[in-house]
Amino acid sequence: MLNTLIVGASGYTGAELAAYLQRHPDVHLSSLMVSSQSSDAGKCFSALYPQYKGVLDFPLQPLTDVFEAARDIDVVFLATAHEVSHDIAPIFLEAGCIVFDLSGAYRVQDTQFYEKYYGFEHKNSAWLEQAVYGLAEWQAEKIKQARLVAVPGCYPTVSQLSLKPLLEKNLLDTDYWPVINAVSGVSGAGRKASMTNSFCEVSLQAYGIFNHRHQPEIATHLGTEVIFTPHLGHFARGILATITCKLKSGVTEEHVRDAYLQAYHDKPLVRLYHKGVPALKAVVGLPFCDIGFAIQGQYLVIVGAEDNLLKGAAAQAVQCMNIRFGYGETQALL
Amino acid sequence: MLNTLIVGASGYTGAELAAYLQRHPDVHLSSLMVSSQSSDAGKCFSALYPQYKGVLDFPLQPLTDVFEAARDIDVVFLATAHEVSHDIAPIFLEAGCIVFDLSGAYRVQDTQFYEKYYGFEHKNSAWLEQAVYGLAEWQAEKIKQARLVAVPGCYPTVSQLSLKPLLEKNLLDTDYWPVINAVSGVSGAGRKASMTNSFCEVSLQAYGIFNHRHQPEIATHLGTEVIFTPHLGHFARGILATITCKLKSGVTEEHVRDAYLQAYHDKPLVRLYHKGVPALKAVVGLPFCDIGFAIQGQYLVIVGAEDNLLKGAAAQAVQCMNIRFGYGETQALL
Amino acid sequence: MLNTLIVGASGYTGAELAAYLQRHPDVHLSSLMVSSQSSDAGKCFSALYPQYKGVLDFPLQPLTDVFEAARDIDVVFLATAHEVSHDIAPIFLEAGCIVFDLSGAYRVQDTQFYEKYYGFEHKNSAWLEQAVYGLAEWQAEKIKQARLVAVPGCYPTVSQLSLKPLLEKNLLDTDYWPVINAVSGVSGAGRKASMTNSFCEVSLQAYGIFNHRHQPEIATHLGTEVIFTPHLGHFARGILATITCKLKSGVTEEHVRDAYLQAYHDKPLVRLYHKGVPALKAVVGLPFCDIGFAIQGQYLVIVGAEDNLLKGAAAQAVQCMNIRFGYGETQALL
Amino acid sequence: MLNTLIVGASGYTGAELAAYLQRHPDVHLSSLMVSSQSSDAGKCFSALYPQYKGVLDFPLQPLTDVFEAARDIDVVFLATAHEVSHDIAPIFLEAGCIVFDLSGAYRVQDTQFYEKYYGFEHKNSAWLEQAVYGLAEWQAEKIKQARLVAVPGCYPTVSQLSLKPLLEKNLLDTDYWPVINAVSGVSGAGRKASMTNSFCEVSLQAYGIFNHRHQPEIATHLGTEVIFTPHLGHFARGILATITCKLKSGVTEEHVRDAYLQAYHDKPLVRLYHKGVPALKAVVGLPFCDIGFAIQGQYLVIVGAEDNLLKGAAAQAVQCMNIRFGYGETQALL
Repeated sequence: MLNTLIVGASGYTGAELAAYLQRHPDVHLSSLMVSSQSSDAGKCFSALYPQYKGVLDFPLQPLTDVFEAARDIDVVFLATAHEVSHDIAPIFLEAGCIVFDLSGAYRVQDTQFYEKYYGFEHKNSAWLEQAVYGLAEWQAEKIKQARLVAVPGCYPTVSQLSLKPLLEKNLLDTDYWPVINAVSGVSGAGRKASMTNSFCEVSLQAYGIFNHRHQPEIATHLGTEVIFTPHLGHFARGILATITCKLKSGVTEEHVRDAYLQAYHDKPLVRLYHKGVPALKAVVGLPFCDIGFAIQGQYLVIVGAEDNLLKGAAAQAVQCMNIRFGYGETQALL
Repeated sequence: MLNTLIVGASGYTGAELAAYLQRHPDVHLSSLMVSSQSSDAGKCFSALYPQYKGVLDFPLQPLTDVFEAARDIDVVFLATAHEVSHDIAPIFLEAGCIVFDLSGAYRVQDTQFYEKYYGFEHKNSAWLEQAVYGLAEWQAEKIKQARLVAVPGCYPTVSQLSLKPLLEKNLLDTDYWPVINAVSGVSGAGRKASMTNSFCEVSLQAYGIFNHRHQPEIATHLGTEVIFTPHLGHFARGILATITCKLKSGVTEEHVRDAYLQAYHDKPLVRLYHKGVPALKAVVGLPFCDIGFAIQGQYLVIVGAEDNLLKGAAAQAVQCMNIRFGYGETQALL
Repeated sequence: MLNTLIVGASGYTGAELAAYLQRHPDVHLSSLMVSSQSSDAGKCFSALYPQYKGVLDFPLQPLTDVFEAARDIDVVFLATAHEVSHDIAPIFLEAGCIVFDLSGAYRVQDTQFYEKYYGFEHKNSAWLEQAVYGLAEWQAEKIKQARLVAVPGCYPTVSQLSLKPLLEKNLLDTDYWPVINAVSGVSGAGRKASMTNSFCEVSLQAYGIFNHRHQPEIATHLGTEVIFTPHLGHFARGILATITCKLKSGVTEEHVRDAYLQAYHDKPLVRLYHKGVPALKAVVGLPFCDIGFAIQGQYLVIVGAEDNLLKGAAAQAVQCMNIRFGYGETQALL
Repeated sequence: MLNTLIVGASGYTGAELAAYLQRHPDVHLSSLMVSSQSSDAGKCFSALYPQYKGVLDFPLQPLTDVFEAARDIDVVFLATAHEVSHDIAPIFLEAGCIVFDLSGAYRVQDTQFYEKYYGFEHKNSAWLEQAVYGLAEWQAEKIKQARLVAVPGCYPTVSQLSLKPLLEKNLLDTDYWPVINAVSGVSGAGRKASMTNSFCEVSLQAYGIFNHRHQPEIATHLGTEVIFTPHLGHFARGILATITCKLKSGVTEEHVRDAYLQAYHDKPLVRLYHKGVPALKAVVGLPFCDIGFAIQGQYLVIVGAEDNLLKGAAAQAVQCMNIRFGYGETQALL
């Protein structure tokens, strides 16, 4: 049994992690922690999330001493703010823990990226270099050896899972930058009081056009430029990404289908559509990324869907842990 | 032309007031103000409410000097916090303005009520005594003379409009306290960042059971006890109130219908249903209170519906102004 | 391993049943059937419910021959129309199956009830007499012996679970008929195309006032009259019931709490709130019925919440099966 | 005063038309009609749309004899099915009426288009040739002379208003086909019972990829190819279109801004954003099309928003009528 700890368990992602880990047969969920300044410290987890009343009545303990927290812990999940992850991941690592970081702090191996997009100076370049990017379907071999797994962002997961099979097979005309239009539920903004997330203020809108931090995350890991336009939608959970791209001359529907099948036929958490494209409801509350596409001439429209909190965060983190420790890839997830 | 001023124009109710007043043919909307501490001071109204872009591009001016603000103003609408209304209404009144206060500060003529339910000491008992409760369909004669109109709360408006005709005609067995179950949209909580109003947190829930401040407002003005259970629903606007009560022995459906007709047949903003009961969608965005009912034996279920921001606030305030100054009762409202 | 069959698997309740049964360790889900006239016959279950793609890719087989369908089947779940259940339950029973009927066809042991409220003549009075009403927390001993379990309706489940502990202990003044105001999600109307369920038409409205068929179901099984007003709300799933009643003179909060504790302290699917009342979000997607209350003087407001498709239908049906066959009561449910 | 008639007044677009025409000072709304087979014939308009109770209590008259219906009518609005408009528009025209057709029957002057995309043979090519495409901001001169105005579709309106200023000024690299991703509310599918529109079935999904009939309508009238991917969203009203395109080398933000200003600075129903892009809430319930954009290098993302039933249908139809008859362009609309 692995002893596991979640830091940042009061957030939406942390809460999903808690639920997965508690039902994982090979895992002992030791405790749920929040940053020591959090106003949720000391509260009961199920007071914040009444759906878990009687199921997960853990106290939310303040993380006051990281060394102390790491004691007897095998695995830590960091569902914390980027700066917090940046600071505490190395301490957990040096204490011998395996760390799955769900923040953006270790996703891109370029320290300047952090100054530009996250507004802080990255001081842990050695760990940044060692970090394995946890796009589970593509990084299994590296994840198996990793000490620090940087779990991808929500938009990057669905975007890369949708595009990578085609890029690997060299099917896309990359002079035509893929256009990724994605709509996310409000939970993507995290659990906090803000006017932006306020019920009466949410409608449907684009944001972060040309300057969202997930654009360089996607482009770096795909190795190609993309135009990424995120939107906030009037629903709690899920992301639907509609991706328009151009095929190289001569590429057929069969080539495209084969590329997807080869990439994912043995991947239990990616579901390919042989006809049509996924609707958001197909994935809400589930750990899958669903992918479908349509072609006309050289143009290809791919639709990818995932639950932003699950395959886009907590489920992928657990999937990475399962791969890392040799458990069944979908253990606790299905 | 009346010179009018709105204080608290950044809130949801203030915004609706602004839209009504701007299209009122007998009114000049002089300016939109917010409290001097408001972080919205200096912003453009249509930056907060993009639907009014090009229509109401007023600056939100900080209210720094009430005497100065009152200069040349005939009518002030206070869509401010209760304590703020309490403090500034007398200053506007003494400067000669007619005041329509949409807060709770002058609704109940009992200073102890304010300590218990609003948490502040009411220091303006002279003005409290003079204030006219602006339940428009029932108070027209008093409103015509009023200098200070205390516009009723959202729940009290629909509750009283539903029950008052029956109580006036002595049709109810008041030993059986009417049970008022009402569901309000999230805008009822005002425009502010809070976890309670956060998109992902809202579902459907009762709150303030047996201790909501609108219960004594309803009971005092009706002159009878009621059991009032408010709920927050997963929608932006509107209130649906389902009221269960008991008729006196011998009272028939015809008596009930006649009581409603007599009360409202000439009231343009109350719509009676001859068959069935109103759905919420009948009133959202409109200044009406819709009322229908069903009877079985001695039991009566009344359903009343209104838009909490309109007949439950801004529209009723404008209706009161129309009555006060002899304009058509629905001027600017329909 | 029990061989189980679902008839009516294309509906929302049938779909939830399918998911539960497939993950039940003691059950083999033999097949998913629909009525032979259904336009869904022959389709793949996961084409209707894309969330189950790859998980439940069963064909929806038309039920053409009930005797044939019953072959080798131990347990049948009927998630069918009332008239269909009425007709086919006896055939399955005579073929030796244990039947869990989720329709209203066997819930009230009074044949006239069916003519009045369901519009058909009940011709199977012998089976009606034998049917056990499956309110699981209260009927375990009878369920253990039952051949035909009539799983309660969604509104009746939450209403009875909320009121029965108090009535059993004789704490309520039943001259004051309890007022049950309940709001249900749209899935309660079933999976079918209709204007009433159409996205743009749904808002919040009362319906079936004084004549909903669940009123007599509740009153009969509780043994006391109630005033029941159901509402349709603008959400997919869940029921929130707000129940106002009057305590007998001298009854205290402690009496009420003790009654609930005694009834449910050992019942895993009823969660009592020691403080506050449940919000709808606490139960959506979960098999629980959550109950909280508030008291003022002799008046008591109870709030009960459940997922209408789960504790109000599919989860309770599986709970009854678990009780019937001696499995853990929450097997497959949690 | 113009005598006006609406055919198809029971639909969502027809209902909005009715509300506009009734408050138009230069118009007399003679009657509301529905096709003679409609199950709504004979019902009261406000029974279908309770928000208009007391305001628009017109009967919905069956259109049995078109000649008879045209008597004394100056202007007809057809909010009917495409085939119905195709058939009855010529009869109204020959009777001397000016016709505003909100269906697709006269939008594209290519009879083969109708066979391919609408599934019927267009038999009125003479009228098709005469029809003026009612994209109001661009077609005013032609509309002033028109007898038959084909009001554009909802997606085509926002798409063309967003792109046309740039194409007219030759700013776009049209080798890069503009990518139009648009999300529409459910009302776009019309008022009818269907599983697709059923509350519990709607989530967010792309549909009609590469084969929606609005793609050729847009491409034909713009004179350039586009990739158009419509989506159905979980809301009642509005369309948000996110359009990605490529600028010609050397084109700057100032060129783009100037092109928009020149096109729309004097157009009251198009609102340009000098900073940021519109959210859907800015236009719901309003007759505007809002447009904003962002540029990076040669790439341009435009966001256009409109209410699909208003600027995308009824408001534009009334705007066309206002232009046709020399009324103020926004008469009855603002």
